[in-house]
Amino acid sequence: MARGPRFVPLPGPLDEEDQEGALNANRVFYRAFNERDFGLMEEMWAHTAAVSCLHPGQHPLYDRAAIVESWRRILAGSGSTQVRISDERVLFARGGLALVTCRELLPQAPLIATNGYVKEAGAWRIVHHHSGQTPPPATTQTQAPAAKRDRRRLH
Amino acid sequence: MARGPRFVPLPGPLDEEDQEGALNANRVFYRAFNERDFGLMEEMWAHTAAVSCLHPGQHPLYDRAAIVESWRRILAGSGSTQVRISDERVLFARGGLALVTCRELLPQAPLIATNGYVKEAGAWRIVHHHSGQTPPPATTQTQAPAAKRDRRRLH
Repeated sequence: MARGPRFVPLPGPLDEEDQEGALNANRVFYRAFNERDFGLMEEMWAHTAAVSCLHPGQHPLYDRAAIVESWRRILAGSGSTQVRISDERVLFARGGLALVTCRELLPQAPLIATNGYVKEAGAWRIVHHHSGQTPPPATTQTQAPAAKRDRRRLH
Repeated sequence: MARGPRFVPLPGPLDEEDQEGALNANRVFYRAFNERDFGLMEEMWAHTAAVSCLHPGQHPLYDRAAIVESWRRILAGSGSTQVRISDERVLFARGGLALVTCRELLPQAPLIATNGYVKEAGAWRIVHHHSGQTPPPATTQTQAPAAKRDRRRLH
């Protein structure tokens, strides 16, 4: 073993710099929605990598122009609706590839999203957006506090 | 330029070997479902990387034990239901990270999935599954053939 370890450790799924880059891109993506900034939304979609966008209950879109057009319509038709992002999680981020999940809290429905990012010419761009229904986050906690109150009432 | 190009090309989002590895893992994942092979399903979920599973309309799961238990219940309760996978696409696959989308054609509902994979100790494992509703694939094609038939009728 004088020449060093025979096996070098494999790289883990999270590189700190890539993780930060992907999380920042995720925030810019939703900022483009909240500010109705179509130019920023268009810019955020990767230009050379394969892209896909799975809006809830709709046909999948795999064509960049069709995806950008779908967002143009969404931004034009969503009035002043604001989406609040919570529970952001980075599944992996390394070597310019990243996968992020987050809740999309919209006034009309709680959604949850999977967003894929790649680093393209030095900038993190979105390559994949998949959004779908999920129960509101609060309902996971309704049982525990109720049980606590019941217990207090028994004493 | 005698010393070679100043800028080396950036690696693209697709490495052929990683792409094949992730696509193969995606097929094994659905084989585990179709064969009700709970051991294989359990084995396919990454052991050290962060994992998440977003079943349609349900609360997100971020705990490996909870995810594996959800699949145990799904396999036990799905009878002989077979899922047919179509339209597999690899968004990126490089350096042991990959993102795959595919349609999940179930008898009761057409779904579409985003699956994330990482290479863990030399084997591709699933780290993320997000499935949601989508219209059946055939309806995207209904316009074009009809238009062709109409055109022939005019001549």
